[in-house]
Amino acid sequence: MHKKFSYQDLYNFSKNIFLKIGCNETDATTATKVLLSADLRGVDSHGIARLSGYVRLWEVKRINASPKIKIVHETPSTAVVDGDSGLGLVVAPVAMQIAIDKAKIAGTGWVSVKNSNHYGIAGYHAMMALENDMIGMSMTNASALVAPTFSVERLLGTNPIAVAIPAGKEQPFVADFATTTAANGKLEILQRKNLDAPSGWVQTKDGLPSNNANELKNGGALLPLGGDKEHGSHKGYMLGSIVDIFSAVLSGANYGPWVPPFPAYVPMPENMPGEGIGHFFGAMRIDAFRPAEEFKANMDQWIQRFSSAKTSEGHEKVIIPGEPEREMEADRMQNGIELLQPVIDDLTTLGKKFEIEF
Amino acid sequence: MHKKFSYQDLYNFSKNIFLKIGCNETDATTATKVLLSADLRGVDSHGIARLSGYVRLWEVKRINASPKIKIVHETPSTAVVDGDSGLGLVVAPVAMQIAIDKAKIAGTGWVSVKNSNHYGIAGYHAMMALENDMIGMSMTNASALVAPTFSVERLLGTNPIAVAIPAGKEQPFVADFATTTAANGKLEILQRKNLDAPSGWVQTKDGLPSNNANELKNGGALLPLGGDKEHGSHKGYMLGSIVDIFSAVLSGANYGPWVPPFPAYVPMPENMPGEGIGHFFGAMRIDAFRPAEEFKANMDQWIQRFSSAKTSEGHEKVIIPGEPEREMEADRMQNGIELLQPVIDDLTTLGKKFEIEF
Repeated sequence: MHKKFSYQDLYNFSKNIFLKIGCNETDATTATKVLLSADLRGVDSHGIARLSGYVRLWEVKRINASPKIKIVHETPSTAVVDGDSGLGLVVAPVAMQIAIDKAKIAGTGWVSVKNSNHYGIAGYHAMMALENDMIGMSMTNASALVAPTFSVERLLGTNPIAVAIPAGKEQPFVADFATTTAANGKLEILQRKNLDAPSGWVQTKDGLPSNNANELKNGGALLPLGGDKEHGSHKGYMLGSIVDIFSAVLSGANYGPWVPPFPAYVPMPENMPGEGIGHFFGAMRIDAFRPAEEFKANMDQWIQRFSSAKTSEGHEKVIIPGEPEREMEADRMQNGIELLQPVIDDLTTLGKKFEIEF
Repeated sequence: MHKKFSYQDLYNFSKNIFLKIGCNETDATTATKVLLSADLRGVDSHGIARLSGYVRLWEVKRINASPKIKIVHETPSTAVVDGDSGLGLVVAPVAMQIAIDKAKIAGTGWVSVKNSNHYGIAGYHAMMALENDMIGMSMTNASALVAPTFSVERLLGTNPIAVAIPAGKEQPFVADFATTTAANGKLEILQRKNLDAPSGWVQTKDGLPSNNANELKNGGALLPLGGDKEHGSHKGYMLGSIVDIFSAVLSGANYGPWVPPFPAYVPMPENMPGEGIGHFFGAMRIDAFRPAEEFKANMDQWIQRFSSAKTSEGHEKVIIPGEPEREMEADRMQNGIELLQPVIDDLTTLGKKFEIEF
């Protein structure tokens, strides 16, 4: 069972909920836009399906709806931002804007964030750079679900990386990916359909290969991109580690197994070394390197060459990063966003609690 | 057949060769150190085995032994460097030093390089940041051997990424990896031993899965990290693309299928859009974010926690990136560097040509 909703209806509902928990008008608008950009772009696991989760974190006082977000240290091209336990959906765009503002003057801007929470999809923040003729980067750590190569312990989150690069006549290049073989959202789809997971996605609690999409519930773990050592999982583990260190060791947030969980009913880790969840953002002005028009002409050629490459049988074209999400966004903006019945039920309950009709 | 050589003997031989082709004293020393750091760290494919390859590129005038390396554009935190067709082994450390110098003042430094050549191992340059209490980053594009997901054409190089991060009492974190499932050097090892390649490393010229370690000779391609779409190869393809764009589109070097080949007998691509090979370097001063001592204390805890994680059966410990290479370096510095007979023969011939005994 599922049903389609218009973007505007979901927007109004979500914004009203954020207002009800105490966000001001600006923050409620920002949080809603960031949250729903996931639904529009087809990352359903990070969109409105998480709204009630954010509210529960606010209920247990792990999220501050009126944070004083501030720069605690800075140089011409860097800053550390304290999110004051705010919604990551609100803290992240503020921090990314600081990176962009620094890049305007110093050529590049790099901002590490502590004391934040889940920030939605990584790509949204990276894409903020595009309209400024800048390359944008965004990454975040997350609670530990991933076992490094040879480990049976979960020590890393799915720790995504997003990079957005402007083009000229072509659409921008937008990469946005978890540093695991498959994002947790893809596993959830298999769970709902009662299907097996491909090899290399998860391992058992003893570190053995598994095709059970529910293996995490048995103490198993997601695997770093590559799956196993022979297929390069040490590289996925390195990538996830770099994201963790840039986001949290550089800012003073929690890292590794100490990153706070998203579900409000899961107790916080003991002996946490930092504050909240960490993010890392970067903005590089194109013309800090080359005239933007020259760069864009080359990017157009790059995109056209890759896009028109000869494909293997059964595939129509080589996909340019960001293309499928852009097509999905156009479709869902026009034709509505499909929600699963459990998500609809959850939002209906949430609406009743705050006397807002869903 | 193989034989061990002392680091000092290889150093003297290599430096003399670089002097013979016209490098000045400083450049010959730098090129030798960078080249041999690959042999010391166990990346044999990128070390002295390539020396005669560099010389052949000089012979056909694709490498300039006395380049005027210069900054062609800059801002407080960025620069584009023109390598003047110099040895990448010489151009890269100069460019990385510019990134470090910019970071001293602006907090971070980011340098994109055009008109360069093969720069040895990525990790060497990234590690230059460590002694300055900075995080170092290094990446380069390379001639196309890799087919993007769904493509049968080779459009990307093995495009490595290196990130070096200082710690306190612990040794630094040093990640250095090709963005393919396996580096070409690992394939060469299988070729020499007449062994099959694991699945996910290469594909046939028609884009079909293959276990033939010699598949590249048949028109096949290396595969991006992940191997196939189901196992996340689109992520490896995105990573390799980001390296290509940062290294070459940002600097004005050649990208994609137009990157110049390493073997001097392979003709240059037609209609090249840029100049030479491209690299990208970054340096971030730790104390541009947090006091270095706080950062290092957290890095020590990060390393200790991961290092002591419970392992799956058959594995002693979870490896911290950089550990195996550091152990190899200590061993080879003390006990010598083993070279294969074909490499010894090649270097002997090279020595005769320049009247230097090997």
